[in-house]
Amino acid sequence: MSTEILLEQWRARVEAALDAALPAADLAPQRLHQAMRYSVLGGGKRLRPLLVYAAGRCTGAAVEQLDAPAVAVEMVHAYSLVHDDLPAMDDDSLRRGQPTTHIAFDQATAILAGDGLQARAFQVLANADVAPSTAMGWLRSLAAAAGAPGMCGGQALDIDATGKQQSQAELERMHALKTGALIRSAVHMGALAGTDDAATLAALDRFADLLGLAFQVRDDILDIEADTATLGKTAGKDVAQDKSTYPALLGLDGARNYLQQLDQQMLACLDTAGDQADALRALAHMAVHRQH
Amino acid sequence: MSTEILLEQWRARVEAALDAALPAADLAPQRLHQAMRYSVLGGGKRLRPLLVYAAGRCTGAAVEQLDAPAVAVEMVHAYSLVHDDLPAMDDDSLRRGQPTTHIAFDQATAILAGDGLQARAFQVLANADVAPSTAMGWLRSLAAAAGAPGMCGGQALDIDATGKQQSQAELERMHALKTGALIRSAVHMGALAGTDDAATLAALDRFADLLGLAFQVRDDILDIEADTATLGKTAGKDVAQDKSTYPALLGLDGARNYLQQLDQQMLACLDTAGDQADALRALAHMAVHRQH
Repeated sequence: MSTEILLEQWRARVEAALDAALPAADLAPQRLHQAMRYSVLGGGKRLRPLLVYAAGRCTGAAVEQLDAPAVAVEMVHAYSLVHDDLPAMDDDSLRRGQPTTHIAFDQATAILAGDGLQARAFQVLANADVAPSTAMGWLRSLAAAAGAPGMCGGQALDIDATGKQQSQAELERMHALKTGALIRSAVHMGALAGTDDAATLAALDRFADLLGLAFQVRDDILDIEADTATLGKTAGKDVAQDKSTYPALLGLDGARNYLQQLDQQMLACLDTAGDQADALRALAHMAVHRQH
Repeated sequence: MSTEILLEQWRARVEAALDAALPAADLAPQRLHQAMRYSVLGGGKRLRPLLVYAAGRCTGAAVEQLDAPAVAVEMVHAYSLVHDDLPAMDDDSLRRGQPTTHIAFDQATAILAGDGLQARAFQVLANADVAPSTAMGWLRSLAAAAGAPGMCGGQALDIDATGKQQSQAELERMHALKTGALIRSAVHMGALAGTDDAATLAALDRFADLLGLAFQVRDDILDIEADTATLGKTAGKDVAQDKSTYPALLGLDGARNYLQQLDQQMLACLDTAGDQADALRALAHMAVHRQH
């Protein structure tokens, strides 16, 4: 089966799994449930779920065992976008070409929907039909990645840095937490479903760290290159908000060169893996070359 | 040992455990970590942690095994207060006689601190040094209680109901989710550390449901009786916000009578339990008779 078809199947698979794991829209409290569904089912690249499936395939996990971590990591990602878009945070009214959750509903509902999605993510992992040791490994990984040692901490560093010039080391630390931690957790949870071999897990963790970095460098480049229509969100936002970016730090060409280096380092992490790593390779390629 | 001394010991125990489980204030991102600590360590009755210890004692659990669920449930409770106090929600500037987190820090930090506390709660459970089956039971209980099927759902029902006259059944459903679910989870997690006997767990679940209800009825009565200084928060807030309350529904005397009934039903749930349930009995008494 071609990698492209495989990715398409996983995309369909996670959409169905997300739909099934979200509370029904006609069940009370309807407005909360509708906002949770709106926040998650409104599209998106599903990069993190695809990484779960791809890393699981790489370590020989059964695809059925990967739905829970795929759903959980996407719910955490979706909740973080809902809260980041709030007026008190990034104050964004557009996301994936659609009104953000607090615009489509209201701020109180958006705050609660985010909170409910985070709880649901952990509930999905805790209720998964797998060995308790696997579920516990997932829960430890996702809880650390979502919280102050990960995503929340990165968002706080991002806020602290607004209006200041960051060094490359500071910028990388911020992104390693803000977006990197969840990407690492996606790969780690997928891999964990198929193996507990420390060397294999370490190589995939390293791959994931590079991928998170590459994803962010490409994001910063896209913010300059793309127009609002292609991007589906407000372009040039980083510059307008005076945030440090890789192009600002390295120049646009410098940022592009850096991205190429990361690309090669990612592939090197998968050197000893065979065909079963092709989906991970394809996702790395997408992260580096994506247009939105 | 007297029950009073026991409760005092548990209070000190959970304060130390919370302090140890929260990220250090001098570690980056400092502002986030400081806000998380401020939100949790600012006092409070610690009812939920005490329920964990008391229920655990009732089923013969070792006290060392109860720190993780005691910390986790209090972190979820604390995060819910931080988010509930936000301008977009209840818009409260005073909590336990102190500025609320978004006043002491800022809204963005308060949103992130709440998010980080929720993640940390699940991380504490996932990292607890207990049998995986116990930890998984805790995680399933707390995740359901915190999310849309519990606390978040109850908060959404509360918002939906503002300005409407609710029936007693609607009011009880809202409170069963908004405050009851977390109280039930506290008792359940504590009990689960010492037993997996279904009848024992069911009796304690029932006790917890009644306690949650009694706690809320007393809260509504206090909102009318107490002045702001004693309560440590803005009194008369429910009336001002046109929320349904038990005194509004049953009259003040009717609400007091109802509270007495709940008190008797709670004690009946513990009929077959011996002295080891004395701490639970004492907490039930406090919930019914508390002045703040």
